Amino acid sequence: MAILKVNLLDRSYPIYVGSGLLSDRDLIRRFIGGTEVIIISDEIVADLYLETLIGQLSGYNVVSKILPVGEEQKNLNTVSLILDLMLKASFGRSVTVIALGGGVVGDIAGFVASCFQRGVDFVQIPTTMLAQVDSSVGGKTGVNHPLGKNMIGAFHQPKCVISDIDTIRSLESRQLSAGLAEVIKYGLIQDLKFFNWLSDNIESLLNCEKQTLTETILQCCHIKANIVASDEREIGTRALLNLGHTFGHAIETELAYTDWLHGEAVAVGIVMAVRMSEKLRWLNNNEVKRICDLFERANLPIMPPKQMNEEIFMRHMSHDKKVSNGRIRLVLMESIGRAKLVSDYPDEVLSIILQENC
Amino acid sequence: MAILKVNLLDRSYPIYVGSGLLSDRDLIRRFIGGTEVIIISDEIVADLYLETLIGQLSGYNVVSKILPVGEEQKNLNTVSLILDLMLKASFGRSVTVIALGGGVVGDIAGFVASCFQRGVDFVQIPTTMLAQVDSSVGGKTGVNHPLGKNMIGAFHQPKCVISDIDTIRSLESRQLSAGLAEVIKYGLIQDLKFFNWLSDNIESLLNCEKQTLTETILQCCHIKANIVASDEREIGTRALLNLGHTFGHAIETELAYTDWLHGEAVAVGIVMAVRMSEKLRWLNNNEVKRICDLFERANLPIMPPKQMNEEIFMRHMSHDKKVSNGRIRLVLMESIGRAKLVSDYPDEVLSIILQENC
Repeated sequence: MAILKVNLLDRSYPIYVGSGLLSDRDLIRRFIGGTEVIIISDEIVADLYLETLIGQLSGYNVVSKILPVGEEQKNLNTVSLILDLMLKASFGRSVTVIALGGGVVGDIAGFVASCFQRGVDFVQIPTTMLAQVDSSVGGKTGVNHPLGKNMIGAFHQPKCVISDIDTIRSLESRQLSAGLAEVIKYGLIQDLKFFNWLSDNIESLLNCEKQTLTETILQCCHIKANIVASDEREIGTRALLNLGHTFGHAIETELAYTDWLHGEAVAVGIVMAVRMSEKLRWLNNNEVKRICDLFERANLPIMPPKQMNEEIFMRHMSHDKKVSNGRIRLVLMESIGRAKLVSDYPDEVLSIILQENC
Repeated sequence: MAILKVNLLDRSYPIYVGSGLLSDRDLIRRFIGGTEVIIISDEIVADLYLETLIGQLSGYNVVSKILPVGEEQKNLNTVSLILDLMLKASFGRSVTVIALGGGVVGDIAGFVASCFQRGVDFVQIPTTMLAQVDSSVGGKTGVNHPLGKNMIGAFHQPKCVISDIDTIRSLESRQLSAGLAEVIKYGLIQDLKFFNWLSDNIESLLNCEKQTLTETILQCCHIKANIVASDEREIGTRALLNLGHTFGHAIETELAYTDWLHGEAVAVGIVMAVRMSEKLRWLNNNEVKRICDLFERANLPIMPPKQMNEEIFMRHMSHDKKVSNGRIRLVLMESIGRAKLVSDYPDEVLSIILQENC
């Protein structure tokens, strides 16, 4: 088992990465303060792992809330239902909320933990590649609104993150690939060496080889943890983590969070940002090819769905959180391993990108 | 104009107290970062002051949300409606949420500010005695749930608080008295001298004499700000501010937040805590008389409504946030000016108090 610490003053917490952690009774119990526990999960993950988790929690007063699968659950109504359940169980401030699942479950559970009685303890047990490398680090929680993704939420750091890599190995290959979109993103925004390493190891990753998985998760968490530690509330650098997300969120919003997985929309969004960076002559054609090639080898899409067009993109993007005083801020790329937040791009370049990809 | 600073590291903020502040254009604009503003108010307060406030905000993109009056507005549905409005206006992270009104408006607006795009700027303009001395200090925000008061919320500090005492002078006398319940509470929990000063000045306060008002508000904010600074997230001392609130919330919940004002329920709750402290021989009969007498002179009730009984109190109190591992923690009094958080009281003493007041 490897341990990585996220440094956030009195909100610092450890991330555990390894095999068999879901059965590690001592580890799981170490971070539960009181006697009350609510586990939030989804139907697929609960079928696979809920019994194992509950098996470690004998002696606690445990309630579970199993959500249907899918991003469409990530709304204020679901939050409200979970809060109802917790209050009906007479849970108090000493309750611990455990998220057992992917990013959707983690985002919902984290927001519930942030606003139940103004904030209670939260433990993340991410079971997808995406959640282990991305959503479990940084304390962003929240739900969607019909007018935009993650519009309602809070920053709420977990007590700990427990990433059992065995859960990745039972993922469908499409889910695994979706997670790789964020993995590749870390290389692109911050670390050329890691990008090169990924190019060499992508097949091993897709085959879920234990050592490659562990190294990848640790490296991604390490990059994200450093960025978050330097900018917890996303005033500066942290925004770079949104590479591809402004375009990607527009796709997800238009598709009402169905059909496409988050990672797939992000993959397309990153490629759009990469092409825009090429138009601005920051990236050369060879770099663009290398990037597109890696996404394709990871079985990820690089073109938006047919129904998207410039008008639809602009409509959704104007509601994005990265809008500052009416101007859409975009994360673009200066080179592989170096991203930049940009507001002063020529509008016609953005317009071309939104058209030519459709 | 007097200024008091609430010291909370990077979340520190000033409280301005004085006459004519609602027309102080420079002061109001100083704390608005971007160009987007949403003002949340209620029908009565908006009629009186909204035009004046908007008059100071020329050049900003201002949207207002006027709520019906009353605690029953304080629910997740209202929060959702306001978030809808902000998203429809395409407001971004640089929006400032202004609360213009009493505690209900402040609690709702603060929670909206805490969760809109994971947190935006918040300015408090409290217009009731209760809000100026209590809810505007400390960063507690939130809404009610059918199973309990303030069950859903966040800690979110404002950028500043602007307390215009002229708004107090136009309050109905019942509202003013309700605010005095919290004023008296500060004396009881922390400051015998202030309690004595209040006993001497209660008529002047009820007559809204400017100097007495200003001194009272500053003194209460000073006491609360010190407590909050030492314990922002209510792990210890801050819980003393809840004197009377566990009993009071039970009354409010049973009445579904209608008929009785918050301050009236708190007044009764404090008297119940005082009587329980007398039963435990911490307060003597003379002190109890002095306290009840001051509440009565402030035109506040000292007995719960007839429909309350032990069973109803216990049912609601078991959902209170002060329940810790199944035990109801109560704030009781060792003497006038010294309160204490207690879990190990004899159950029969609580039982007697819940019966004899009904």
